[in-house]
Amino acid sequence: MEVISSNLNEAIDILKSIINKAAFVALDGEFTGINSDESRAFDMFESPAQRYQKISKIVQNFLMIQCGLCVFVPNEDKKSFTAFPFSFYIFPQDDNSGPNKNGFSCQISSIKFLSQHKFNFNKVFNDGMPYLNSIVEAECRMKIEEKMKSMWEKEDEKYNRAKENKYPYQLSFKIADSDQQFVKDMIQLIDEWLSDNSKKILQFPSCSGYHRKIIYELLYARCTDKNMLPETVREESGIYILAKKLDEKEKAQAAEEKFKTQLSKLDDAVGFCKVIDILRKANVPVVGHNMLHDILHLVHQFIAPLPNDYYEFKEIVNTAFPNLYDTKLMATTEPIKTYFADSSLAAAEKRSQKEPFQNVSIEFCKEIDCKDFHEHYHDAGYDAYICGTVFARMLYYYDTLTEDENGCCNLQSEVLQPFNGKIKMHRMLDIPYLNLSGDDVRPSREHVFVMRFKEPWPLSKIADYFSAFGGAKPMPVPMDETSFYIILLNEKESVNVSNKLVGEFQDFTLQKFESDRLEKTSSAAKRKADSIVNSPTGQIPAKKEKSESTVQRFSQNLQNGETI
Amino acid sequence: MEVISSNLNEAIDILKSIINKAAFVALDGEFTGINSDESRAFDMFESPAQRYQKISKIVQNFLMIQCGLCVFVPNEDKKSFTAFPFSFYIFPQDDNSGPNKNGFSCQISSIKFLSQHKFNFNKVFNDGMPYLNSIVEAECRMKIEEKMKSMWEKEDEKYNRAKENKYPYQLSFKIADSDQQFVKDMIQLIDEWLSDNSKKILQFPSCSGYHRKIIYELLYARCTDKNMLPETVREESGIYILAKKLDEKEKAQAAEEKFKTQLSKLDDAVGFCKVIDILRKANVPVVGHNMLHDILHLVHQFIAPLPNDYYEFKEIVNTAFPNLYDTKLMATTEPIKTYFADSSLAAAEKRSQKEPFQNVSIEFCKEIDCKDFHEHYHDAGYDAYICGTVFARMLYYYDTLTEDENGCCNLQSEVLQPFNGKIKMHRMLDIPYLNLSGDDVRPSREHVFVMRFKEPWPLSKIADYFSAFGGAKPMPVPMDETSFYIILLNEKESVNVSNKLVGEFQDFTLQKFESDRLEKTSSAAKRKADSIVNSPTGQIPAKKEKSESTVQRFSQNLQNGETI
Repeated sequence: MEVISSNLNEAIDILKSIINKAAFVALDGEFTGINSDESRAFDMFESPAQRYQKISKIVQNFLMIQCGLCVFVPNEDKKSFTAFPFSFYIFPQDDNSGPNKNGFSCQISSIKFLSQHKFNFNKVFNDGMPYLNSIVEAECRMKIEEKMKSMWEKEDEKYNRAKENKYPYQLSFKIADSDQQFVKDMIQLIDEWLSDNSKKILQFPSCSGYHRKIIYELLYARCTDKNMLPETVREESGIYILAKKLDEKEKAQAAEEKFKTQLSKLDDAVGFCKVIDILRKANVPVVGHNMLHDILHLVHQFIAPLPNDYYEFKEIVNTAFPNLYDTKLMATTEPIKTYFADSSLAAAEKRSQKEPFQNVSIEFCKEIDCKDFHEHYHDAGYDAYICGTVFARMLYYYDTLTEDENGCCNLQSEVLQPFNGKIKMHRMLDIPYLNLSGDDVRPSREHVFVMRFKEPWPLSKIADYFSAFGGAKPMPVPMDETSFYIILLNEKESVNVSNKLVGEFQDFTLQKFESDRLEKTSSAAKRKADSIVNSPTGQIPAKKEKSESTVQRFSQNLQNGETI
Repeated sequence: MEVISSNLNEAIDILKSIINKAAFVALDGEFTGINSDESRAFDMFESPAQRYQKISKIVQNFLMIQCGLCVFVPNEDKKSFTAFPFSFYIFPQDDNSGPNKNGFSCQISSIKFLSQHKFNFNKVFNDGMPYLNSIVEAECRMKIEEKMKSMWEKEDEKYNRAKENKYPYQLSFKIADSDQQFVKDMIQLIDEWLSDNSKKILQFPSCSGYHRKIIYELLYARCTDKNMLPETVREESGIYILAKKLDEKEKAQAAEEKFKTQLSKLDDAVGFCKVIDILRKANVPVVGHNMLHDILHLVHQFIAPLPNDYYEFKEIVNTAFPNLYDTKLMATTEPIKTYFADSSLAAAEKRSQKEPFQNVSIEFCKEIDCKDFHEHYHDAGYDAYICGTVFARMLYYYDTLTEDENGCCNLQSEVLQPFNGKIKMHRMLDIPYLNLSGDDVRPSREHVFVMRFKEPWPLSKIADYFSAFGGAKPMPVPMDETSFYIILLNEKESVNVSNKLVGEFQDFTLQKFESDRLEKTSSAAKRKADSIVNSPTGQIPAKKEKSESTVQRFSQNLQNGETI
C-alpha cells in the first residue's frame, strides 16, 4: 500500500487492526544520502560510541524520505504468514519546525540510484506526509494554547497602540505623498462600513504588504468599540484583508474556532509520527537488513533529536524498540554465515530459497490494496517485505537446530535470542555489531600496532618486516597518509613484537595500539554505568533467555562471527 | 523546448544557428534553495562585497537544477520578435568531480514550492544533463592522457608484482581454507584457456569483489607472455571479469579505443557547460529578473568555483557576460518605477501589457518543438520567456523617451545603458544594486547611528527620543537583539545629533554608524584598484556610451531610485 498524506488515516486504521496479531514487523528506509566526509573518516578500530558520533552527524544531514513497514501476521496453521506491506512517503512540512527545518542534504549518487530504481520524487515532495515528534508537538500545542489565552489581550493592545499613533490619521509611520490618497480612500471605506450596521464583513482590495500594514493600523484606529477582527486572506488571485464585526458571543466562537483549526492543523503535522507511535506501543519485534541508518533516522526524525551521548541513544532505542533483529548480522554470523557469501538483501533472499532453508508460505493480505505495490528493490515497502521473508526463512532454519517445541518460526528461539538488540556495523575490524541490549564487544587489541612512517614504504615491505613474527597485515589509518595499522597474523607473537620491535627508528616509529583509545572507551563505559545506577529501574532491560547455557553457546558465534 | 541529456546535442545545434541573430537572451534558474542561516544575517547596511560573501556561501550549498534560456531574434520588420525558449534540466554526473561533488542542500519550502508548481524532479534527477566547467574538464583530460601514456607500463608492473608474490599460487595474501578450492578451480580455468590458441576471450563467472581480486592476481601470475588484458564488466545479472589475449597490434588498438571511449565520456560530462560556452562566445546581452542568484549559480556550476574575492567575481562575470540587464532593477527605478507597485515577474508582466507600455509582438519559433513548453510560472524556460517579453516592452517605452533614431527596441538606448551590468540587491537600504560594470554605490551614512541598549526600549520610545531632531526610523540590527540602527528622517540634523546625543547613557549607548565598516569597504576597493592596475588591460571593460550627459542624467535615476 502506497501511503501519502491523503490516505494516512486509512493506513493507520488498518495498521491498528493488525499490529497486535503480528509476529514481527520488517522495516526499511530510503534516504537522500548515506555517505559524507564523516564516513570517509570511519576508522576500523574506533569504538561503537565513536562510530555513533560520525553516523549521527551523517543522519542529521540527510533525510529518510520513504519508510517501508511490512507487518507479518501468522496464519492459524502457525506455518505461514500474511504480509501487510506499506510504503510511507515522508517529507517535512515546512522550514519552521522539527529536526529538518534547516533543510537537508542530498548525495548525488544516492539520488541517482533511487531515481534509476524508479523512485517517485515528485510523489514524495508533493504528497509526502509530514512528521512532528511528540516533543515538538507538545511545544507547538503549548504555544497555541498560550496564543489563544492572550488573543483578546493582544487585540486590545492593538486598539490602544492605534490611539497613541501620532502621524496623520493615527499611523505609526510617515507615509509618502504618493500614498496619501490611498490612506484617505481606505479611511472612507472603513468609516462607511463601521457606521453601516447591516454590513458585517468588509473585504479590502488585494494589495502589497506595505498597503496592508496601513489598512491594519487604520482599522484599529477607526474602530472605537473594539468589536472588530481583521484577518489576511491569501488566494491565487492576490492577498487581501477581511474585517469582521463581532459581538461578545461571536468573539468567543471565533476564538474557539481558531483554536480548533490550529489544533487540527497540528494533528495533521504529526503525520508519520503516529505510525511510529503505533509501532512503539505494540511492542512487536522489529526486523531490518543492515538497519543502523534506518534506526538512527527513525529516532532523529520521529522520536527525538539524536543525543550527543551514545548511551542516551541506546536508551532511547531500547525504550522505543526493545526487540530489534538485523538480518544482515544474522546472515554474516554462525550458524548460517557459510550460506551467505554475498549478504546483500537481494542475494540473501535468493540464497534463502535454497537448502538448508525451507520456503515459508507468505501471502499478501487481501484487506489492503497491493495492486500499486512496487515489486522491485529500493521501494521501501518491498525491501521490508523481502527482509521479513528472509527473516522468516532464517527462523525456520534456526528451529531445526534446537529441540524447541514452540512450533515454527519461534521468536524466542535460543539461536535467535543472542541477536536481539544487535545491529550490524560496517568497516569495523573486530566489532561486528552495535549492541543496544547491553555492553558492546571489547576485543583485545594486543596484537595491533601503529606504524608511523617518515619515509614511505611499499605495503609488501611493511608486511615482510614482521615475517619473523608470523607475518602481519598492514592497513592504512584513515585520514592519515603516513600511518598504518599492523595486525599480527599470529596473536601469540604480540609480546615478542612489543619487546623487540616497538620504538623509534630511522624510517618509522612503531607503537602498541594506543592505549588512550581504550581509556576513552572505558571512561564512556563508566559514564554509562553511572547513568544506569541513576536510571529509574537501575538496569538495562534484561532479555528473556530460555536456556542460559545454550544462548551462551550461540552467543559465542556472534563474538567470533566476523573475521578480517 | 525541454532539454535533457538525450536531446542536448539537438538543442545545441539549434542554439548555434540562431544565437548570432539574437537581440538578447533572457535567463532564469530554478534552485533547490535560496535561504539559509547566511540570509538571516543579511544586514541592510553591509557592503556589496560583504553581501556577496553571504550569497556566495548560500549558492555553494544549493543547486540550480533547471536553467531557462529564451533567445529573442528580431524579425525583419524590426518591430517584432521570434522567441526560442529552452528549459534545460541539469543534474551533476556523480560524487567524483565538479563543484557539487560533495552533494547539495535543499530548502524544504523551495522544494515544496517547485513541486506545487509541477516541477518534474523525476525528470531532472533521472534525465538531467551533467556539467563540468572547462577547468575541471582540462584536469580530467590531463589525467586520462597520463593514464593512457602509462597504461602498458602499469600492466607490466602487474606481471612483475605477480612474480614476487609468495603465498601459494602466487597470491599477495593468505586465503582462507574455504577459498582454496575456488583458487584451484580458477587456476585450472586460466591455464586451460592460456594453452588453447583458439580461444581469445575468457569470461569468468560473476563473483564477489574478494574473489575478483583473487582472479586478477592469478591471471597476471599465470600469463607469462604478458599479452593478456583483463577488465571488469558490470551488468544487471552480476559483476564478472573478461580476459582477452592480444597481439602487439591489438594492444595498440585496445589502448586507442580505451582512450577514445574515455574522451567521449568526458565530452558527455561537459554537458550544460557547452550551452553556457555558446552564450559566452556570442557576446549577446543577457537579461534576467532579479538575477543575482542566477548569475552566482551560473558562475559556480558552469564557469569556475566562486572566488572568495568579490572583485575577482566581478571580473569573471564581466568577462563572461559583459552585457547584463535586470528587469527587476529596471521596474523599481525611474523612469518607470511608478508603474510597478508590485515588481514581481508575474505582476510586471501584467502591468507591462497596459499603458504607457505597448504590446510587443512576440511569436514562438516554428523551428523547435514548443508543444511541451510549460506555460506556467516557475518553469525556467517560461520565466525566461516572460522576462524577455517584459524587457522588450520596457525597451519600447524607453525608446519613446529619447529622440534616438536607431529604431524600436534599441539596446544602445541612453535610458537603458545605465542599467548595464547592474543587478538588483534586496534587503539593502541605500544600495539598490550590485554594479558589475564599475564601482559600487557608496552612499553617505552620516545620518545613520547605532543605538545599543542595556535595557530594552519599545520602538515608539526610540523613535520619540529623536523627535526634536526631525524624527528617526529605528531598525533592528540583524543577529543582534540589543541594537538598533537609527536613521534620521532629516539628514540635515546629522551634525546636531552627533554633537548632542552621541555617547554612553544609563540605558544605552549611541554611536555614529561605525566608520570601521566604511574603512573595510575602502580597503577592499583599494585592493580592487591594485588588481586593475595589474590586469592585462589596466582597466575595467568600459561601456559604450552614446551621449555622456544624457546617460549621466538617467544614471541619476538609478542612484536615487531606491528609497526606504
